[in-house]
Amino acid sequence: MKVKLFSLVTVFLMIFMYGKSQSARISATAAADATEIKELHLPPAERGGGRPFMEVLNERKTTRHFSERELEPHLLSGLLWAANGINREDDGKRTAPSARDMREIDIYIITPQGAYLYMPEGHQTKLIKAGDFRKEAAGRSEFAASAPIILVFVANAKKMEKMDAAAKDAYAHIDCGYVSQNVYLYCASENLATVALGGVDKEGMTKILDLKEDKVILSQPVGHMD
Amino acid sequence: MKVKLFSLVTVFLMIFMYGKSQSARISATAAADATEIKELHLPPAERGGGRPFMEVLNERKTTRHFSERELEPHLLSGLLWAANGINREDDGKRTAPSARDMREIDIYIITPQGAYLYMPEGHQTKLIKAGDFRKEAAGRSEFAASAPIILVFVANAKKMEKMDAAAKDAYAHIDCGYVSQNVYLYCASENLATVALGGVDKEGMTKILDLKEDKVILSQPVGHMD
Repeated sequence: MKVKLFSLVTVFLMIFMYGKSQSARISATAAADATEIKELHLPPAERGGGRPFMEVLNERKTTRHFSERELEPHLLSGLLWAANGINREDDGKRTAPSARDMREIDIYIITPQGAYLYMPEGHQTKLIKAGDFRKEAAGRSEFAASAPIILVFVANAKKMEKMDAAAKDAYAHIDCGYVSQNVYLYCASENLATVALGGVDKEGMTKILDLKEDKVILSQPVGHMD
Repeated sequence: MKVKLFSLVTVFLMIFMYGKSQSARISATAAADATEIKELHLPPAERGGGRPFMEVLNERKTTRHFSERELEPHLLSGLLWAANGINREDDGKRTAPSARDMREIDIYIITPQGAYLYMPEGHQTKLIKAGDFRKEAAGRSEFAASAPIILVFVANAKKMEKMDAAAKDAYAHIDCGYVSQNVYLYCASENLATVALGGVDKEGMTKILDLKEDKVILSQPVGHMD
């Protein structure tokens, strides 16, 4: 009896372990297949360097022509960290302020390959949807649809839920301006082209990104000058 | 008859010219008396220098304590130029972008002596009203009322008149964010304290500055850390 029970347990254990190893193998394969579009590679952001600040302000401008050339990973990394990255690890505070520290401005990155969400925690991105949605991100400003990257700034409704309705709208727009100016100045520092676009296709982007209550405020293409 | 008419004209002319010279003398005296509070002295703004840009972003933060010590003229000058100064003389374009190039954000400077308007053209200021209005500029944030300078950002209605009502509000807030972030970053570059205040006494400031249709958006005190 004792031996029979032992054999039975052993058999069950073997079946269980085989199953586990199989499913682990399947996950690993799926991850490998999706690696290329699952996220954008962001090397650690440089937190020093760049042009002297007053010179950056002197070079700040709007540019409406973009090279289609891809943005190098170190520039994309610097751009996103500059825009709204964490500059104080202890409490997760950012390069851009926000009303009542709501941190409600989400940055989506629209590339020819897909739409990604920037996650300041861990300085990484997450694929939201594969496909080229630059046409919708550029909206009325068709000249921008060939930029290698278009950032889309979205006010996260959940992060603003404690604020009354009238204030929500005002602060979401002010806070979006903070982030957008960081992008303008990063571009001035790195000699990149950029322009803030109020004509982004808000309805289109809301569907593509499945935003529900979150609100699209502006888009902002970034690319090389030539 | 001809001689009589000539004498009459001469007498009138003399009376007229005497009056003119008197009024000119009176204006000159009034101007001399008012010189000290008529404007804030702004030396030319430095358009180079400051910390490297990525380091400035790394130091960007909100500070809620201010030394009462006065801001030196070169810092006030740099601050205003950084905020929304002209960086392209040929077309008057600014360090901060604005929707459709409306340039609608006016900066008022509230000091213990008075309320002044910053005029990017000529990089100068104009006295709007003598007196200490820092209490109203700080509004609900009483801790800020002793800062040596409080900037008040106002959306100029006349400059936005071509825009429809719904868009006006959105862009005035975004554009205010651009200017306010320049102030945050200038403070990070120069080791000054600052915080954007949504609790500014909007009604009070509207009366003091006689704003009519123009809208107060934010205030932002600036001072030394200690």
